[in-house]
Amino acid sequence: MSQLNDKLPTALYYQLKERLMSRITMKEWNPNDKIPNELALCHEYNVSRITVRQALTELEREGYVIRKQGKGTFVSFPRIEQNLTSFYSFSDEFKKRGFKPSNKILEFHLTIPVSEIAGKLGIENAGKQVFCIKRLRYADETLVAIESTYLPADLFNDLTMEDLENNSLYEIMRQKYDVNPNSAEESIGATSIGDRESVFFGVRKGTAALDIERFAFSGSRCVEYTTGIVRGDIFRFHVKLT
Amino acid sequence: MSQLNDKLPTALYYQLKERLMSRITMKEWNPNDKIPNELALCHEYNVSRITVRQALTELEREGYVIRKQGKGTFVSFPRIEQNLTSFYSFSDEFKKRGFKPSNKILEFHLTIPVSEIAGKLGIENAGKQVFCIKRLRYADETLVAIESTYLPADLFNDLTMEDLENNSLYEIMRQKYDVNPNSAEESIGATSIGDRESVFFGVRKGTAALDIERFAFSGSRCVEYTTGIVRGDIFRFHVKLT
Repeated sequence: MSQLNDKLPTALYYQLKERLMSRITMKEWNPNDKIPNELALCHEYNVSRITVRQALTELEREGYVIRKQGKGTFVSFPRIEQNLTSFYSFSDEFKKRGFKPSNKILEFHLTIPVSEIAGKLGIENAGKQVFCIKRLRYADETLVAIESTYLPADLFNDLTMEDLENNSLYEIMRQKYDVNPNSAEESIGATSIGDRESVFFGVRKGTAALDIERFAFSGSRCVEYTTGIVRGDIFRFHVKLT
Repeated sequence: MSQLNDKLPTALYYQLKERLMSRITMKEWNPNDKIPNELALCHEYNVSRITVRQALTELEREGYVIRKQGKGTFVSFPRIEQNLTSFYSFSDEFKKRGFKPSNKILEFHLTIPVSEIAGKLGIENAGKQVFCIKRLRYADETLVAIESTYLPADLFNDLTMEDLENNSLYEIMRQKYDVNPNSAEESIGATSIGDRESVFFGVRKGTAALDIERFAFSGSRCVEYTTGIVRGDIFRFHVKLT
């Protein structure tokens, strides 16, 4: 590891911060890894403790590391901050952040919806079928969300599980069915991870999570109703209000 | 209670729904009260069970009641759905929904902020003071949120606890200091209610909650930094994405 350069106009702490950041983004250190302690970093980079602390403080503020009192500094899973500015899809957003999105289908069947779901999908005719799809949504190896999605079956004739495993739902809608979801109403609440979900997420039961309800529309037709639970420790929403 | 009128063009279930709704909004039935069961409602209003169920289903969907399997139907605390469309204040939003907003001040003091808070408020000069205010935010008698707010002291000379107890913060800014907060960046995550907060909220420790971070700006100047915890069982955010 080359030494920092105190002749550069860039402050030492900032140079150090960038070095440490690149060791995280280049995966020398992985999420949950403990990184060397302050003293070890002082020696390795030949800088003062104040410089090390300043670099770590900024890394923590930006979400790269978590400092745990008495235990050390750990690489955090990069938080996903989702901007609530326009129509988005998890698949696209994960990709933008350098994660590979993937889905695992837990349930996939046709059903006659209860009146509540039919109402939400704007299906007046009581006997109409819907696809009922339960998906695990991954960013790389990390399960970020579990979603239950209902789609009006008449719009998505011959939809298969294979389609959904390998493609984003909105891509399928657009490419296979010429349905163009272009607006959504989303509602965001708080929940906590239950018994069954805790097994999937690999976190303790009771862990804070976001509960999301989404209606997606193609023009004025509701083409998707989804409820989901999203891990609160790695996901936040962000919005600009004017 | 007068009978429903099947000569009216309005469907019976809808008439029933409106009757039940008014018994809730007129406080004949209060939050958490158990309302009469389906059979009792059939007799009282002289309608079929299907009609009663349809009315209850709509009331539940709209958040007026909660049906608990095997236990009955209960009046829910009216959920507050906050639209994330434009700059808002809790005080104004509570008022719009017919609640009386009030604040209880837990902490109010001047302090030299840690660098993290100074940074967020855009105070470059390290020694500058900020007001540190911890408030309980009520809608009627219900504690909805606990907030910690930091304000740059130079902007709000002579701010008092009394000001804050009796007025909305943004009103004070506008009227007493000619500071006009008109935009904000808000970030919304999941958390759960801790030991200390559970006493204030009167709910079990571990109850799902939303964790909110807000920067409010007057023009480009950051005039407020607030972190808050909001009860998840009575508060959701709503957003329209296009």
